[in-house]
Amino acid sequence: MSLLVVGSVALDDIEAPAGSVKSVLGGAASYCAIAASYFVRAQVVGVTGDDFPQEHLEFLAARGIDLAGVTRAKGRTFRWGGRYHSSLNQRETLFTDLGVFEHFDPVLPPEYLDASFVFLANIHPKLQRGVLEQARAPRFSAMDTMNFWIEGERAELEKTLSRVAGLVINDEEARQLTGVSNLVRAADAIRALGPTTVIVKRGEHGALLFDEAGVFAAPAFPLREVQDPTGAGDSFAGGFMGALASGGSLSADALRRAVIYGSVLASFCVERFSLDRFRTLTRDEIDDRFEQFRRLTRF
Amino acid sequence: MSLLVVGSVALDDIEAPAGSVKSVLGGAASYCAIAASYFVRAQVVGVTGDDFPQEHLEFLAARGIDLAGVTRAKGRTFRWGGRYHSSLNQRETLFTDLGVFEHFDPVLPPEYLDASFVFLANIHPKLQRGVLEQARAPRFSAMDTMNFWIEGERAELEKTLSRVAGLVINDEEARQLTGVSNLVRAADAIRALGPTTVIVKRGEHGALLFDEAGVFAAPAFPLREVQDPTGAGDSFAGGFMGALASGGSLSADALRRAVIYGSVLASFCVERFSLDRFRTLTRDEIDDRFEQFRRLTRF
Repeated sequence: MSLLVVGSVALDDIEAPAGSVKSVLGGAASYCAIAASYFVRAQVVGVTGDDFPQEHLEFLAARGIDLAGVTRAKGRTFRWGGRYHSSLNQRETLFTDLGVFEHFDPVLPPEYLDASFVFLANIHPKLQRGVLEQARAPRFSAMDTMNFWIEGERAELEKTLSRVAGLVINDEEARQLTGVSNLVRAADAIRALGPTTVIVKRGEHGALLFDEAGVFAAPAFPLREVQDPTGAGDSFAGGFMGALASGGSLSADALRRAVIYGSVLASFCVERFSLDRFRTLTRDEIDDRFEQFRRLTRF
Repeated sequence: MSLLVVGSVALDDIEAPAGSVKSVLGGAASYCAIAASYFVRAQVVGVTGDDFPQEHLEFLAARGIDLAGVTRAKGRTFRWGGRYHSSLNQRETLFTDLGVFEHFDPVLPPEYLDASFVFLANIHPKLQRGVLEQARAPRFSAMDTMNFWIEGERAELEKTLSRVAGLVINDEEARQLTGVSNLVRAADAIRALGPTTVIVKRGEHGALLFDEAGVFAAPAFPLREVQDPTGAGDSFAGGFMGALASGGSLSADALRRAVIYGSVLASFCVERFSLDRFRTLTRDEIDDRFEQFRRLTRF
């Protein structure tokens, strides 16, 4: 099975209590693809500027990620700057410089057209739909979105939502999208828009899965130290989609195990800045933490 | 086994999106004892004013709660008023009128002195310690506390903490008590003060148990409707302590099951205002929801 991921490839400046880094590898597609790369071959559609360091592409390629769909355009790579305060729960965006990402129009290379699993990271909902229209017959497609599109592009967003099987968003976005404060009822309202599988990410509080079989609650892994929460949600999505795609099943059990794998990948992601934890992370460590999740939740 | 509970018996005014109620039964000891009453005989030590309605005492007694330790003093019952906004996560205290609770000095009736399990709800840490000094040989004692004592009575609080086996507090209090933002390290710091079992309550995000065996994460039950979050934490403590006391074991498994029972009782508590849900709640409903917790967390 292969997993197609479309989204941003970026350079980030991060300020956090554990330190500050500048111009490090970031972007939703980068985090998602690298998390998925422990389970399947991830095919990325994205764009970088001509200032994007070759070493970042080499790092991703070394994890077996297919970068045929990542184009290099004239101009600056998408850059984002964020600051975390001591609680690490809330972040402040310092700047967003879209660069070449502003005119991103995802085109799937021919060898991506038969992708069986598709994840549409947070980009304009019209572009997300464009990817779905190119993909020939994905077995399972899921998407993320953000407050900017919920506020400004609701009609486009609802059109795209009606075409995906899964939505992976955070709790605030779920409430904003539906106008419903209670998450169980917000998930009902989202499922009425199309996606049968809704995952609500709650940061350090874990994630809730709502599907045909009911509700499933996954805790976040209790970590002693978090260096950089950036990319946790995208790593979650990558681990979730990768695990699903590698198993091939869409059963309730498979979805639940995939949510735990998503939580595992997110938990590793935040241990270091940028994608650095993935430079050394092994599949054995992932499976070991999966088992630790059993001990964490078993009664 | 019996469970001794010391704490407030109160009359509450509550404003919430689902409605407003005035002068309803409240207080940490009331919530804790009624939740525990599904598992064991709860013995309450508390005080009411001479304005306290007899019907509330009859309601508690009808659940098999021993009220021999609840004295009736001349003056007003402790009254508290709170307001919840649409998210239900944060509340505003409208007033606190201590009344006779200001001079509360818990004295255990002779038949309470052999209580095997003791829960010290949130009162002055010196009074909590006074109860521990009266109890002959409890097998397991746990306590709650609040920001007011953490700020103003730290020395007394630490003395009391060094004498209990368990602490049940919320996440903000855990951080405030230790000055540590990371909850895993905050729990380490609390355990260094005395309690080997630390439970951090996180409201709608569930609870974390830290003990000799490691960490255990319990989700909150995903409810479609919450009328009144008041007393959820005390109901959690009552369900936890009651389940522990009824089983008699302090094994890691028993502690984990007790945390789930605590979560079950908290989830029922918030379905109605005041202690009203407990007017109809049955043990069968509790055990049924306990099984729903298995489905909610199994992977």
